[in-house]
Amino acid sequence: MSGVQQIVLASRPHGTPDASHFRVEEVTLPALVEDEVRVKGWYYSVDPYMRGRMSDAKSYVPPYQIGAPINGGVIGKVIESRSEALQAGDVVLGTLPWATEAVVPAKALRKLDVEGVPAHYYLGVLGMPGLTAYVGLMDIGQPKAGETVVVSGASGAVGLVVGQIAKIQGCRVVGIAGSDEKVRLLKDYGFDEGINYKTTPDLNAALKAACPEGVDVYFDNVGGDISDAVLQQINTFGRVPLCGQIALYNADAVPMGPRLQPLLLKRSVLMQGFIVSNYQHRFPEAMQHLTGWVKEGRIQFTETIVAGFEQLPTAFLGLFSGKNQGKMIVEANV
Amino acid sequence: MSGVQQIVLASRPHGTPDASHFRVEEVTLPALVEDEVRVKGWYYSVDPYMRGRMSDAKSYVPPYQIGAPINGGVIGKVIESRSEALQAGDVVLGTLPWATEAVVPAKALRKLDVEGVPAHYYLGVLGMPGLTAYVGLMDIGQPKAGETVVVSGASGAVGLVVGQIAKIQGCRVVGIAGSDEKVRLLKDYGFDEGINYKTTPDLNAALKAACPEGVDVYFDNVGGDISDAVLQQINTFGRVPLCGQIALYNADAVPMGPRLQPLLLKRSVLMQGFIVSNYQHRFPEAMQHLTGWVKEGRIQFTETIVAGFEQLPTAFLGLFSGKNQGKMIVEANV
Repeated sequence: MSGVQQIVLASRPHGTPDASHFRVEEVTLPALVEDEVRVKGWYYSVDPYMRGRMSDAKSYVPPYQIGAPINGGVIGKVIESRSEALQAGDVVLGTLPWATEAVVPAKALRKLDVEGVPAHYYLGVLGMPGLTAYVGLMDIGQPKAGETVVVSGASGAVGLVVGQIAKIQGCRVVGIAGSDEKVRLLKDYGFDEGINYKTTPDLNAALKAACPEGVDVYFDNVGGDISDAVLQQINTFGRVPLCGQIALYNADAVPMGPRLQPLLLKRSVLMQGFIVSNYQHRFPEAMQHLTGWVKEGRIQFTETIVAGFEQLPTAFLGLFSGKNQGKMIVEANV
Repeated sequence: MSGVQQIVLASRPHGTPDASHFRVEEVTLPALVEDEVRVKGWYYSVDPYMRGRMSDAKSYVPPYQIGAPINGGVIGKVIESRSEALQAGDVVLGTLPWATEAVVPAKALRKLDVEGVPAHYYLGVLGMPGLTAYVGLMDIGQPKAGETVVVSGASGAVGLVVGQIAKIQGCRVVGIAGSDEKVRLLKDYGFDEGINYKTTPDLNAALKAACPEGVDVYFDNVGGDISDAVLQQINTFGRVPLCGQIALYNADAVPMGPRLQPLLLKRSVLMQGFIVSNYQHRFPEAMQHLTGWVKEGRIQFTETIVAGFEQLPTAFLGLFSGKNQGKMIVEANV
């Protein structure tokens, strides 16, 4: 089984990463031992958090090693098995290397039920982004009917689900995104208002107009100037789930901005950083709701699917220039 | 009853206030009507939050009006009563004007039980500062035995109580204050470590040494550079009750600093602004514990008592240059 390709971290980026930080290698995988399976990669998730792992700063996930494969959420098909738990043809999800094939213990994989649900949804609305949206909004944001929820990065994988869950909770929902096309997508998905931050002449004024009763929940996917503007409109007892700060991930120096604490203090605001993997106790409820809402058509989901394993670095880099609508996925031939 | 003096807001400060923003006036009070009492001021509370009320910015308490008396927490003695609820000689607490006497409805006052407790404690450890320390630490900070709690403004009215409650909870407690004398006070009151931020050559290094296992709870009374340094040491799942930002209250422009959200996100930190008056449902439990701890000698309390009604502006202004140890109070002759 020669000819397996993998993509490794060639060097650590300072500032914005580019193609030179990745390298494609050909490797030969070992034969299976007891309880292992061979998986052919099908759908590969590319996510903003991976930027953090390319640096060696201490974070909540260990850094990638130079010369070792990038890894992340991957859906694959079992093509050979020495485990009783899985058989050839099974569709599985796991944290796997960016490689065309991988040999792993069966217990590291979760078999997916793909009856009536496209497999790649398990990287999106029924996967990490959907669960992130659910626990961040419901557990930290705690939206109440009639409140106003603002979400930045609204047309991304997490943002789209946040907005639709907030609508289901009876909220007014305002999304911020980076193109007119993305704003149209928000409207299609039931957001009350969409703001294109790149073309709005005055983001503060646009937010005021879109949120006449202020902002009760700000689901923050981006950070930076956009978040500064939204926080100006935060109401007393507002809640701010911090989910992502993509505007700052490529910053090399510590980014500076207006000090937040006086505002949070005056308005009794809660701000909470969170990592979805710390909310596993909430996943059963979240999956039950998300699956139900998807099947009922109450949550729609957009994906940007890029064809070709070798496109993984390009697709990942595209996240930082807003190339995706909804979840960005790379599909390999299986 | 002529000759009543009151202190009014002469003009609104921009930046640091000074004596020129206050003016002493003589007024004549009206005769009592049914259900009113005449109160002679005894102990007057001066508090950092009053700075906010001198400006006309929107906040959680309404601004003082130019030409009208400053008001705040005052303990007084009833000297004349047309109410059945109170009689001459009663010691009462209320939000009263900075005046040597006041005529108010009896129902605006709370009669104090001063058996075995100095009356002025009701402006400190058994008053707003003590309650603030209790709900901020216990409800937001949620300290667990063995955790490390850092408190800034540690020798102030709130900070001293925070540190002692944290010790009662079994925590390691590190206080930050602005003089060697204040740091000695912290040690006297059972803090494990005290740091004089004005003389420490490297605050980051001092904090690292004082908090070898990082910081689980940071009770923030000051904001600014000191808080930046503490937050560098915050642990995953850390909690940051935002109680005060005295370092920034006199800032005229929006203060800038390092953006916090990436740090809060990476470490799953909760930051929560709070105002004690929103926790009234917690006061009975808090008062029961605080009173018990004071009577058992488990909580000690320091006050800086300045003599003379006319010293009110000077005492208030002294808060911003660290003139107080513990609660700052002005005592008038009664």
